[in-house]
Amino acid sequence: MAKRKTLRSDLAWATPERIFVKGHDLCDELLGKLSLGDMAFLMLTDRVPTAQESIVFNALALTLVEHGLTPSAIVTRMTLAGAPEAMQAAVAAGLCGLGSVFVGSMETAARVLQEALPDPKAKADLDALARDIVAAHVGRKHAIPGIGHHFHKPVDPRAPKLFEIAQANGFSGRYVELMQKIAHEAERTTGKTLPVNATGAIGAIASELGMPWSIVRGVGVMARAIGLVGHIREELANPLAREIKTRSEEEATSHRR
Amino acid sequence: MAKRKTLRSDLAWATPERIFVKGHDLCDELLGKLSLGDMAFLMLTDRVPTAQESIVFNALALTLVEHGLTPSAIVTRMTLAGAPEAMQAAVAAGLCGLGSVFVGSMETAARVLQEALPDPKAKADLDALARDIVAAHVGRKHAIPGIGHHFHKPVDPRAPKLFEIAQANGFSGRYVELMQKIAHEAERTTGKTLPVNATGAIGAIASELGMPWSIVRGVGVMARAIGLVGHIREELANPLAREIKTRSEEEATSHRR
Amino acid sequence: MAKRKTLRSDLAWATPERIFVKGHDLCDELLGKLSLGDMAFLMLTDRVPTAQESIVFNALALTLVEHGLTPSAIVTRMTLAGAPEAMQAAVAAGLCGLGSVFVGSMETAARVLQEALPDPKAKADLDALARDIVAAHVGRKHAIPGIGHHFHKPVDPRAPKLFEIAQANGFSGRYVELMQKIAHEAERTTGKTLPVNATGAIGAIASELGMPWSIVRGVGVMARAIGLVGHIREELANPLAREIKTRSEEEATSHRR
Amino acid sequence: MAKRKTLRSDLAWATPERIFVKGHDLCDELLGKLSLGDMAFLMLTDRVPTAQESIVFNALALTLVEHGLTPSAIVTRMTLAGAPEAMQAAVAAGLCGLGSVFVGSMETAARVLQEALPDPKAKADLDALARDIVAAHVGRKHAIPGIGHHFHKPVDPRAPKLFEIAQANGFSGRYVELMQKIAHEAERTTGKTLPVNATGAIGAIASELGMPWSIVRGVGVMARAIGLVGHIREELANPLAREIKTRSEEEATSHRR
Repeated sequence: MAKRKTLRSDLAWATPERIFVKGHDLCDELLGKLSLGDMAFLMLTDRVPTAQESIVFNALALTLVEHGLTPSAIVTRMTLAGAPEAMQAAVAAGLCGLGSVFVGSMETAARVLQEALPDPKAKADLDALARDIVAAHVGRKHAIPGIGHHFHKPVDPRAPKLFEIAQANGFSGRYVELMQKIAHEAERTTGKTLPVNATGAIGAIASELGMPWSIVRGVGVMARAIGLVGHIREELANPLAREIKTRSEEEATSHRR
Repeated sequence: MAKRKTLRSDLAWATPERIFVKGHDLCDELLGKLSLGDMAFLMLTDRVPTAQESIVFNALALTLVEHGLTPSAIVTRMTLAGAPEAMQAAVAAGLCGLGSVFVGSMETAARVLQEALPDPKAKADLDALARDIVAAHVGRKHAIPGIGHHFHKPVDPRAPKLFEIAQANGFSGRYVELMQKIAHEAERTTGKTLPVNATGAIGAIASELGMPWSIVRGVGVMARAIGLVGHIREELANPLAREIKTRSEEEATSHRR
Repeated sequence: MAKRKTLRSDLAWATPERIFVKGHDLCDELLGKLSLGDMAFLMLTDRVPTAQESIVFNALALTLVEHGLTPSAIVTRMTLAGAPEAMQAAVAAGLCGLGSVFVGSMETAARVLQEALPDPKAKADLDALARDIVAAHVGRKHAIPGIGHHFHKPVDPRAPKLFEIAQANGFSGRYVELMQKIAHEAERTTGKTLPVNATGAIGAIASELGMPWSIVRGVGVMARAIGLVGHIREELANPLAREIKTRSEEEATSHRR
Repeated sequence: MAKRKTLRSDLAWATPERIFVKGHDLCDELLGKLSLGDMAFLMLTDRVPTAQESIVFNALALTLVEHGLTPSAIVTRMTLAGAPEAMQAAVAAGLCGLGSVFVGSMETAARVLQEALPDPKAKADLDALARDIVAAHVGRKHAIPGIGHHFHKPVDPRAPKLFEIAQANGFSGRYVELMQKIAHEAERTTGKTLPVNATGAIGAIASELGMPWSIVRGVGVMARAIGLVGHIREELANPLAREIKTRSEEEATSHRR
């Protein structure tokens, strides 16, 4: 039998009388004192946020909670219609689609920034980095993550607002600067209007907060879980799912009947 | 073709320049001003919480974020091991198990309370209600939801802390009182030590906040989504899933080899 | 530390040279010899089916593979649109809605039959059982599972076909008889046309095959997984999901813009 | 409002009296005549398979049904422990992990083969293709998909068996030949023993059957759904999940208590 690795987790542990989360006594130190968003920050960084970090992180997360009848919202509502006794599975189904197309772009934006600038305090020529990033994406015909928006044009209003909040709280550093330079370089190269969008702003500001890119998508996943519970509440009161299903099925098969 | 229902949703809508969530301009009124937990309250009730409601609701949600290597955490980690490119599906898989056994009990507790006391301001004999509820559950051999705990004994420390926070903020009303009377009646009837546990306290206090029981499980689902992202972060840094799998498989099939 | 249970599984085990499934050598005894449907029967009963059992079981499962743009199919397609790199999560999301409303009714039908007739060879008055079952459901205002259909009227064509196949292969016993008596009694009591539907036929015939009701829903889940992969193939070639989403969102929020 | 795409699906449609799947009358042409595996082939290719195709395709799918206490099986069992009322969500959770690490390699193998040989009848130098493929993967430090196995060594017994079945039924063509040449070239280059494994054989033979690589993972997903229902059946009779959870949690947090 192969030599075994010892299992170890440091997120939470409990005795019959006490529960610890990330080293804090849940009852004595967290309940009634920490907000849900600050708890999320603690789970993602091992630290209770400062007042400034809290404002900035909560704004990032808030941006992603709710954006109307998105595919994930429709999925959650359709799933609830078939299994109303398993609300948790309806939220789960809705989360399954938060992949490369929608929420994934904020992970990709953060990755591009962090790979270009592994140490945000090291010397670096941001203009040259932006040129290289744009050229590499254009050369491979890859979309540049975090810029442009098909609906919110010319400017995605969330991006300047998030940058303003980051600036006011001391988190507008070189990742934000590089993200903006990427957008400018992309506009210069393509001749199109391609300002930083919400996912680009989130990717940049999450990098300023010290979050590794590999966990950035998680901010979107946890935020959307909150929004999807809101859709469950509305679907219970005013159902849409069956109507969408009936119309879609009738139209899609009308040529055969 | 059957007469059709018009689709309508009032959670969010957008123009190219603005995004509204529950009637609030996302950029002007929410970002930088509302915390993630207060946003969750808004999604569940249509109102921004008061300062007191915010403290109480955030405490409820916080309780459910993280409780160590639960089945849902192991599920998320195992799923990530097979599909690291789809973190959202790993969280989704973890949420699927938040059913009747664990998180569901807070829904059931809220349901029992709200069905017994549909209008918390109406006259009612809480002692009689508690006796009836306990008798009905004992008669059908159903577990009484929200009392006792297999590990946190004699007292689940989260319950008195949550009740204390509710009391300090004006949310210790008749649902809390009824929940406690149910526990006392259950103890009297069975002779066992069965104080209110965390899910009972949450079910009661969520009822005090005016949340219908049909949505109470959602507080657990959204909170646990946050915790599961924390487990993804730890699993990426210090993986457990494969070791658990290897040990389990070897032991379970050793009698055949 | 509590005394521990030894882990044990008898589904499959392997040595470096050989793989066993349910006691059969996968390479020598199963591959090229057993069909996928018969393998499913083996997983559900511990036996390779006889020729008759194979025909009957494959017919049951086939019935559930595909029924057009169902909610589960729309869910799978919407999820794929957001996460095309995670097809498995798109199928998973689609399965999440196979709950009490659609597929669950065949589980409920099987349960009603098996609880009324735990030993299909024991003496029993099927007419009296049917009367009791219908009366109990009507009394509690519960729907009687397995009868009537909102679209396939007056007769769901799958039910008589499945009963014919079961009959021709020796599996039309007392569960089938009781299911039909329940439908007749329901029609007599309510005055409506309520013949056995597909889920009622499947619940009855699965009971004839000796499957416990607790696993009957699983036949639907595995069958639908096959159908959902078919929807993924069509969605990749001719996408519907975004169009459904765009229309739904525009209509649902038009009153606000 | 943007010009709209008409929704259209050709998988299934129904009238009150009849149900069609892929153009076949479900009751008259499929039930009692087609096996579940052949139905899966129909969903993936638009054709009922020939006898030879049926043997080969069923063998591919069968290979993937069950391989013991895999991560996906543990996930399904853990999920069931928390939500026994939602078996479908337990299967769904188990499927979520069939990503790039395990089942995804058969998709990658098929993709490499089909991209190298888009038209299997066109002239091509298979030795040169194999050399280029191996060199490209080694150069980018990517694993070559479909060869070697950490446990089944020196030879994964499923691969030669599947190749034998393909050969006996006329489906051992140039994709199979190229897959084997890739393995030989990899062994020559690295000096290691790296024969074709089960996923490599499946990727190659699925290509011989004319399945596009983008749908190959789906064969694994549908097959595993069957196996996971088997695990649910065993977990209901002889539960493992809680024991695995208790042991894992105790060990992982023992250093903190």
